[in-house]
Amino acid sequence: MKHFLNTQDLSRAELEALLVRAAEFKASPAGDQLKGRAIALVFFNASLRTRTSFELGAWQLGGHAVVLQPGKDAWPIEFEFGNVMDGDAEEHIAEVARVLSRYVDMIGVRAFPRFVDWSVDREDRVLRGFAQYATVPVINLETITHPCQELAHALALRERFGNDLRGRKYVLTWTYHPKALNTAVANSALTIATRLGMDVTLLCPTPDYVLDERYMGWARDNVAESGGSLQVSHDIDAAYSGADVVYAKSWGALPFFGNWEAEKPIRDQYRHFIVDEAKMALTNNGVFSHCLPLRRNVKATDAVMDSPACIAIEEAENRLHVQKAVMAALADR
Amino acid sequence: MKHFLNTQDLSRAELEALLVRAAEFKASPAGDQLKGRAIALVFFNASLRTRTSFELGAWQLGGHAVVLQPGKDAWPIEFEFGNVMDGDAEEHIAEVARVLSRYVDMIGVRAFPRFVDWSVDREDRVLRGFAQYATVPVINLETITHPCQELAHALALRERFGNDLRGRKYVLTWTYHPKALNTAVANSALTIATRLGMDVTLLCPTPDYVLDERYMGWARDNVAESGGSLQVSHDIDAAYSGADVVYAKSWGALPFFGNWEAEKPIRDQYRHFIVDEAKMALTNNGVFSHCLPLRRNVKATDAVMDSPACIAIEEAENRLHVQKAVMAALADR
Amino acid sequence: MKHFLNTQDLSRAELEALLVRAAEFKASPAGDQLKGRAIALVFFNASLRTRTSFELGAWQLGGHAVVLQPGKDAWPIEFEFGNVMDGDAEEHIAEVARVLSRYVDMIGVRAFPRFVDWSVDREDRVLRGFAQYATVPVINLETITHPCQELAHALALRERFGNDLRGRKYVLTWTYHPKALNTAVANSALTIATRLGMDVTLLCPTPDYVLDERYMGWARDNVAESGGSLQVSHDIDAAYSGADVVYAKSWGALPFFGNWEAEKPIRDQYRHFIVDEAKMALTNNGVFSHCLPLRRNVKATDAVMDSPACIAIEEAENRLHVQKAVMAALADR
Repeated sequence: MKHFLNTQDLSRAELEALLVRAAEFKASPAGDQLKGRAIALVFFNASLRTRTSFELGAWQLGGHAVVLQPGKDAWPIEFEFGNVMDGDAEEHIAEVARVLSRYVDMIGVRAFPRFVDWSVDREDRVLRGFAQYATVPVINLETITHPCQELAHALALRERFGNDLRGRKYVLTWTYHPKALNTAVANSALTIATRLGMDVTLLCPTPDYVLDERYMGWARDNVAESGGSLQVSHDIDAAYSGADVVYAKSWGALPFFGNWEAEKPIRDQYRHFIVDEAKMALTNNGVFSHCLPLRRNVKATDAVMDSPACIAIEEAENRLHVQKAVMAALADR
Repeated sequence: MKHFLNTQDLSRAELEALLVRAAEFKASPAGDQLKGRAIALVFFNASLRTRTSFELGAWQLGGHAVVLQPGKDAWPIEFEFGNVMDGDAEEHIAEVARVLSRYVDMIGVRAFPRFVDWSVDREDRVLRGFAQYATVPVINLETITHPCQELAHALALRERFGNDLRGRKYVLTWTYHPKALNTAVANSALTIATRLGMDVTLLCPTPDYVLDERYMGWARDNVAESGGSLQVSHDIDAAYSGADVVYAKSWGALPFFGNWEAEKPIRDQYRHFIVDEAKMALTNNGVFSHCLPLRRNVKATDAVMDSPACIAIEEAENRLHVQKAVMAALADR
Repeated sequence: MKHFLNTQDLSRAELEALLVRAAEFKASPAGDQLKGRAIALVFFNASLRTRTSFELGAWQLGGHAVVLQPGKDAWPIEFEFGNVMDGDAEEHIAEVARVLSRYVDMIGVRAFPRFVDWSVDREDRVLRGFAQYATVPVINLETITHPCQELAHALALRERFGNDLRGRKYVLTWTYHPKALNTAVANSALTIATRLGMDVTLLCPTPDYVLDERYMGWARDNVAESGGSLQVSHDIDAAYSGADVVYAKSWGALPFFGNWEAEKPIRDQYRHFIVDEAKMALTNNGVFSHCLPLRRNVKATDAVMDSPACIAIEEAENRLHVQKAVMAALADR
């Protein structure tokens, strides 16, 4: 592991080692794996769970996290190379990454898409820029994927079902949200669920809501290697039927990327994708989760959120443990 | 002590123990009472003293504070239960409080009123929401009361007058400020001064500036139990005459809550409530204090602020010591 | 050393001791010089390097930094004395400085000019206000000078040329930037370069870009004491010819201070002051540096920034080491 940008970059053994180590940290939180080491957490977008869990995780292992918010309490940054920088940006990523690398031992980066042009956003250039110029490991704190969330989700599922998740029926369901959101967690859920060998259904309103071909391709590759399956469905009842896991997320339809006003009347037709008790009753006594934040009674009902089937809080807690495992692994390098 | 929401929730023994422990921390700052423990400081409003003193207090006891500002660098939060969350809020307090409870060992909350409808603000629903859903202790960092300020104030008075404050003449005086402010510190001053058995005068321009009946009731209850007295006065000279303590604060008149334009011409008539040398000369060589921040030459003159009678800086310092006592007590649970 | 406001306040021995100690911290980062001690970092303006390096520096020495941003997550502050505070400011510097002094062991302050009236900004009243009222040492994090940058720069030059820099030819060159910027780093570069006995050329487009007489005077004083020289030049080729060090910075012309629209067409004529390979080829195989942030291909070309002659990243790293030396020295007092 040079960086932690996507779980798909990890070998099966590296992934397994992170999940095992995370469970160990959950049982025994204190450590000295980051003694004298520092991490910069660079947030281009707001954060509650990620910021708190990384800051505390570093501290619990003897390290220190510095939280930076470029454009809020630091400088706007240029990511293109070779430009004449006569616009807003006062500094190039080359300098930011190199200077931070002199101060800290690893750099975490959160940078959501700009939601104007998917062909640009899908290049993930902020994260890639840091990974290119930093001389220390870079961690993805959510850009167009969210691998820390994947690990937390996987750990929560292992806690419910045991470490071998092969053969479990997993539904990733689109849910309604008034705004068109990032596909990052959906991309990540699809990636990790297939990686772990589950029988995965991507349930979404129409073919326009299928995910980017890069992540669909990763999922197919994973199925081929791990022995699960992948299907896309627009049939709610069929998808929920017999499911062991229901994972919900809302996202914008990629064909309408940057043209969200046109997508709005379409998405507004699918408010009934909300996760409710009737749908959960179709499952195999399945668990429900979501990455949070979640709009209650929009994405899922109060009854589902407050039911014993809901493992969203457990998954959120696991962010702390898995991220400590990631930081400790990168510190070992 | 399950939470630290109001001093009125504490037994006499609990209150005394906090003040004794605070004095001990003032004499000997370092400790390990929070070793390996973390506190989240959730600020819905700006802070200088509270944030600095809690962050350092946690650190001096071996713990770590995470500073969060929902709506600034985290998500807007929903506090009503059962709503369809299709407005601005991306997350419900139930999830925020439960998730934070998995990461930290206590949660501090600052949430000022919205100043539109007192019948809503007086429910203190942000603080109550955290206290309801969190599974760890919650600390009031100022909402519609300010109990940490009460303890700091009480410690500063004990340092001047000794631990037994019964029989001291205490004046809580309204002062002018160009804006209608929160009643929190006034509510708290009335509460703690009567609790400690002092003879308390609430000096304010007109009956409209009397405080909410909840806090007037607490004060009467305290008088009955602690043996002091309580009166409301609109006569500056009579109120200051023979006072041992003058505590100043500005606040908006509750009958005009949310209708502040109508209150403005009234408050503007009472600029002469400023604490000045002439008024202080009427006291029994009394001390002056204020919770800070204070507009010089509006609430109190430079001469009063810079006089030996002023214990506001001492009181501000005491925030650190009393809050360490609160955190240590909650960690003992 | 009571405070660290300007290097010009330091004796030659104090300056030398700081640079020696900084080099020691660079070789061996951990220490306990700030054990149990805290520093408040008060940022009235954005920061990346300064905030990260001070926060980590304090932590590496066993201390703790609290980062405050008045007007963002704390109160607006009044700096005039005797005013009736009925404007925006909720608090006077006297209280802010005195209260912070009760919580922390030193206070760092960043406060850029307001760029309206140089006769006001040159009084440096925010920094001076803190230094006047604080009862603990105050550190300049960049106001109208930037002494921490001076030390980092000096250390980087000593690393390249050895500790004795006398006789080196040093060029401080104005460079183009679309906006009129602070003269702080230019003032500081002139101050430290002359202090260290170098032969200094201030290269700028016109006499209007010469620096404030206070700093020109410091430079002349330094030349008299340290045995270097000082000249002002508007001839690019002559200035670069044979230079050992090229230090670049953009700043606004003081005669146009607050009247920047009138300066704009003048500065726009001098885009060719960009540091490029052709100019660097005129030097004595000289090094290039800049305080960062730097707009690539505006202030300096990609080729210069990415050349081995560029020591800007080394200088940025040195911020950490020199600031630890400053904090440790102030903690020794």
